[in-house]
Amino acid sequence: RIDGKRLWDSLMTMAEIGATPKGGVKRLTLSDVDKKGRDTFRTWCEALGLTVRVDAIGNMFARRAGRDPKRLPVLLGSHLDSQPTGGKFDGALGVIAGLEVMRSLNDLNITTEAPIELVNWTDEEGSRFGHSLMGSGTWAGIYSLDKTYGLKDVDGISVSDALDSIGYKGEHPAKPFPADAYFELHIEQGPILEREAKQIGIVTGAQAQVWYDAVITGQDSHAGTTPPSARKDALVAAARIVTLVDKLMRARGEDGRGTVGWLQIPQPSRNVVPGEVRFSVEFRHPIDGEITALAETFPADAARLVAETGCRLDLTELFRIPAQPFDPSCVDLVRQATQRLGLSSREIISGAGHDAVYVARSVPTAMIFTPCKDGLSHNEAESILPEEAEAGCQVLFEAVVARANR
Amino acid sequence: RIDGKRLWDSLMTMAEIGATPKGGVKRLTLSDVDKKGRDTFRTWCEALGLTVRVDAIGNMFARRAGRDPKRLPVLLGSHLDSQPTGGKFDGALGVIAGLEVMRSLNDLNITTEAPIELVNWTDEEGSRFGHSLMGSGTWAGIYSLDKTYGLKDVDGISVSDALDSIGYKGEHPAKPFPADAYFELHIEQGPILEREAKQIGIVTGAQAQVWYDAVITGQDSHAGTTPPSARKDALVAAARIVTLVDKLMRARGEDGRGTVGWLQIPQPSRNVVPGEVRFSVEFRHPIDGEITALAETFPADAARLVAETGCRLDLTELFRIPAQPFDPSCVDLVRQATQRLGLSSREIISGAGHDAVYVARSVPTAMIFTPCKDGLSHNEAESILPEEAEAGCQVLFEAVVARANR
Ligand SMILES: NC(=O)NCCC(=O)O
Ligand SMILES: NC(=O)NCCC(=O)O
Repeated sequence: RIDGKRLWDSLMTMAEIGATPKGGVKRLTLSDVDKKGRDTFRTWCEALGLTVRVDAIGNMFARRAGRDPKRLPVLLGSHLDSQPTGGKFDGALGVIAGLEVMRSLNDLNITTEAPIELVNWTDEEGSRFGHSLMGSGTWAGIYSLDKTYGLKDVDGISVSDALDSIGYKGEHPAKPFPADAYFELHIEQGPILEREAKQIGIVTGAQAQVWYDAVITGQDSHAGTTPPSARKDALVAAARIVTLVDKLMRARGEDGRGTVGWLQIPQPSRNVVPGEVRFSVEFRHPIDGEITALAETFPADAARLVAETGCRLDLTELFRIPAQPFDPSCVDLVRQATQRLGLSSREIISGAGHDAVYVARSVPTAMIFTPCKDGLSHNEAESILPEEAEAGCQVLFEAVVARANR
Repeated sequence: RIDGKRLWDSLMTMAEIGATPKGGVKRLTLSDVDKKGRDTFRTWCEALGLTVRVDAIGNMFARRAGRDPKRLPVLLGSHLDSQPTGGKFDGALGVIAGLEVMRSLNDLNITTEAPIELVNWTDEEGSRFGHSLMGSGTWAGIYSLDKTYGLKDVDGISVSDALDSIGYKGEHPAKPFPADAYFELHIEQGPILEREAKQIGIVTGAQAQVWYDAVITGQDSHAGTTPPSARKDALVAAARIVTLVDKLMRARGEDGRGTVGWLQIPQPSRNVVPGEVRFSVEFRHPIDGEITALAETFPADAARLVAETGCRLDLTELFRIPAQPFDPSCVDLVRQATQRLGLSSREIISGAGHDAVYVARSVPTAMIFTPCKDGLSHNEAESILPEEAEAGCQVLFEAVVARANR
């Protein structure tokens, strides 16, 4: 069995890197804090005798040899980057649990048939550069390396420069290598498992999503002198779109998702009618058709609402991810492990995007969810219990070893 | 007559201090750029043999002696601070035109009966610390010096520290001294004079206004996993208030003003349902009763709309300025000067707040407006013609000298 206490201690050590006053974590991708997290992860891997490879987009791979040199590796992992006001477990759980799998294999002196390879994917969150699953998406060939390198954060720093500045632009190519399977453990980040008192979520797939960048251009003018008829208020226009996104979400019932998470008036002033507003929009739904339909109607509907205020909308679709079913045989290994361990479980579709979604395009993939308090994530108050982490890690161990030894 | 070319040249020299790429000015109050503007103004005054006094809130006064030591001074001036994306003339016109009045008096070897005193008021714009007319309001005793010193900008820098850091916390008390009159020349910042092709606006008063700070608190959560029913989206709530403010403005017709000019998600991320949004609200109207009525109903109406989204609204009224009529005898001096000079004119109520509004509470006051292109202000494209500046300055000169020699 894996060592629950050691797992928890390492989770808490990682949580100190970028710890926030409110008990969360701010470990933005490719920041100096992310570098500290990466360095710690590398040290831990090397202490186990594993060599860490870094690819051109900063993904980190640590391979443990198998008995059969012809067998393809079984991958496992997740991400160490976080949201600006993130929690301790989103991503970190999957990486540190993967490390615990490696440590347990060493302790138990087990040599698996296939090699096992632990991954820390770069920029899963997408919060800094606007593309979630950036590292895994580049690895999987969904984003070209050149395009990804050119993405910039709010301060104009490119992915390429950020990688250089923390020394994590590796020499290995960022493209898929042959692998036998990929398993990722993650907190659910939603309320379902907790509500139904299940210990494990057997993830059968992830929902579809589409992300946009929006810029509304109006005209800066004086708040005291500009009469209603002469206003081109970009914020009034943006408020219409925020309301529209919420309405489109609610029209789809409890499965709908529609969010403006980032919004900025570049040069705001209390007594200036805002002439420019920039914001993000994203929609998600388990059914591909709903996202396709939204992507067809939303841009024109939004542009019309904005035009009514005398402003202009420039909308850029950043990416679209179709609904992604996971591999039935890998999902089954998770199901079997859960049953063998006597854990309560249910099948579940992931509301969040995960690196597993892009990896699944070239490698048979499954995910394991554990509950989190109040279903809260992307929040500093994100919280799980040590026994929940332990149960998830044990399932991960069993599924990975079963696959590697099949 | 005043020297129109010299006036324009000095305006252009001042416009270089904090010049922006788009042809505007960013000379935020008490910034290093503001210090440069102040230093230049001081040098210009001293070159005329005037001594510059600075008071505890950084207001600058340059007195030119009169013939009669018992006569109270006639004040004139405006402000050198600007909006973050401001124009070259908002405020600067009144200060530099006042300097041109002083220069012309020197050239013409005129000694007026009463002393004449040129003022550069601190932080008229209110953009940095949230209180427009801050320097004149403190001087007039409307804001206590202690309270003003404690106001902070977005970066947490207090007015007191900002004054110290640029060396403009003067030793003179910031309170009204006896004065005979105050005249302020300003661009209209609105479309009326241009539309009616008038060279001069004879300002009879300024409209009422009320400013608020608002904080909406919801709950950060994951954009992909949080179902509609579990969301507490502070931005969706804020969008309702932005829409309400616009609606309340439009319900009052072309005289209505309602603006959310500043809005911030403190820690925004594309895939996080925003848990906190901060913004400003202001309303203005020529009729006091309209602002009083708004101030009575808006807080509760807004709180109700926000509560419906599961969020909480904390609204703070920052200040309220009643409609301020100007002094009939001073207004009449402006009218007479305009007529004597054969300039086209109309009476007008100021849509913007001006230092003259607070000065008017203790000193007989009038203002002179000149047109600006497309009525645009608080915009880098703000523009006036040299002959418009010259005409306004000539009226200022005549009114001030007439008052000082009466
Ligand atoms: N797991 C997770 O929080 N992923 C971030 C990307 C997303 O928004 O789905
Ligand atoms: N004149 C001017 O732009 N004043 C700024 C204060 C206000 O918002 O009225």
